[in-house]
Amino acid sequence: MPYVNIKVTREGTAPGASATTPEQKRALIQGVSDLLYQVMGKPHDSTFVVIDEVDLDSWGVGGVTVPEWRARSKAPPG
Amino acid sequence: MPYVNIKVTREGTAPGASATTPEQKRALIQGVSDLLYQVMGKPHDSTFVVIDEVDLDSWGVGGVTVPEWRARSKAPPG
Amino acid sequence: MPYVNIKVTREGTAPGASATTPEQKRALIQGVSDLLYQVMGKPHDSTFVVIDEVDLDSWGVGGVTVPEWRARSKAPPG
Amino acid sequence: MPYVNIKVTREGTAPGASATTPEQKRALIQGVSDLLYQVMGKPHDSTFVVIDEVDLDSWGVGGVTVPEWRARSKAPPG
Amino acid sequence: MPYVNIKVTREGTAPGASATTPEQKRALIQGVSDLLYQVMGKPHDSTFVVIDEVDLDSWGVGGVTVPEWRARSKAPPG
Amino acid sequence: MPYVNIKVTREGTAPGASATTPEQKRALIQGVSDLLYQVMGKPHDSTFVVIDEVDLDSWGVGGVTVPEWRARSKAPPG
Repeated sequence: MPYVNIKVTREGTAPGASATTPEQKRALIQGVSDLLYQVMGKPHDSTFVVIDEVDLDSWGVGGVTVPEWRARSKAPPG
Repeated sequence: MPYVNIKVTREGTAPGASATTPEQKRALIQGVSDLLYQVMGKPHDSTFVVIDEVDLDSWGVGGVTVPEWRARSKAPPG
Repeated sequence: MPYVNIKVTREGTAPGASATTPEQKRALIQGVSDLLYQVMGKPHDSTFVVIDEVDLDSWGVGGVTVPEWRARSKAPPG
Repeated sequence: MPYVNIKVTREGTAPGASATTPEQKRALIQGVSDLLYQVMGKPHDSTFVVIDEVDLDSWGVGGVTVPEWRARSKAPPG
Repeated sequence: MPYVNIKVTREGTAPGASATTPEQKRALIQGVSDLLYQVMGKPHDSTFVVIDEVDLDSWGVGGVTVPEWRARSKAPPG
Repeated sequence: MPYVNIKVTREGTAPGASATTPEQKRALIQGVSDLLYQVMGKPHDSTFVVIDEVDLDSWGVGGVTVPEWRARSKAPPG
């Protein structure tokens, strides 16, 4: 009975999107559930997946917020 | 000093509601705090309870989102 | 499909115990599941409960560890 | 590679604010990252910080919601 | 910069194992990181994965512990 | 009433240590509680801090476990 919590920044990564799309959520849920079945034999019905989106300025890395960190490191969104 | 986190889907389960109602939140907070006192003797003042509501399409079970899983299994909301 | 996470300090609160007992864990699991059914109509089968025990010196309150805080405040265990 | 999750009630604690301000978020992110470097030598780039704001009526202490608890105990916001 | 937390019961699901094996942990970490790259373009280096194992009697479903629930429902381990 | 959860890998970062030391835990608890008071005026008594240590092979970054990632990137422990 696995429980999986996925936290991502709230931003668009698909064309034209400003947040995680319904299609992406479905793909994450199916992919994680398939993975737990393949690796550990966990039945799909016993796996819960919860996806949280976090505002960009509420996520920190490198001692600064994500937007500041990306500007500093020239890192692409991710 | 217990810490309890309750995650539920964001939807109405009381008549006319579209989300967890203030009355339901109060009942959950009181009920969990009472339980920890009765079972383990934890003083009410030292118990924190945090309730999170999660969008239906951000919660997965059975490899699909909750709405798809309910449609498939004819399961009632829960 | 609620998910409930209960964190308590790892210590005995039942006579002779040095940790949460199996009976206490069962009472917490049943009590929380009953509560979610009574307050929100959540079916028992769709509620997951995970209990975590945390070492006393890994839990802080009042800016100090739990043992230091209890010594300072003459607070009873809880 | 530390991961730090900070949960606070969603309310203003700075003058004129009704929620955690961007300046406060930046200060929390920098302060926690600095702390993990000073205490444990963790490089800033390997520390993630996620700040969650929780509605006042979704946070319980003393068996009641935070607003009820403050009214009862004459406690200042915190 | 995703953060993924996977919680599973502490038990063997591979031949001869009594807990999650190092190979299974590696497969979960790689699989989840690949998934986040494929679905959302998240660079591998910015994805953290934390796997927690939870004792069987600390995990509840259906109002009882996992061992009791399996005995009752004749459900296979999962 | 903030709640802060700090997750670090279980390994020694102080001389001769193989895990987070009691002194380091105390410094983290005090430092985080001070920070929340300084930045947001949160009283020390209302801040909970929980420190979790995670086995090195249960933490993933870059699609691999922490030991593999460090070997690959020549990164220092952190």
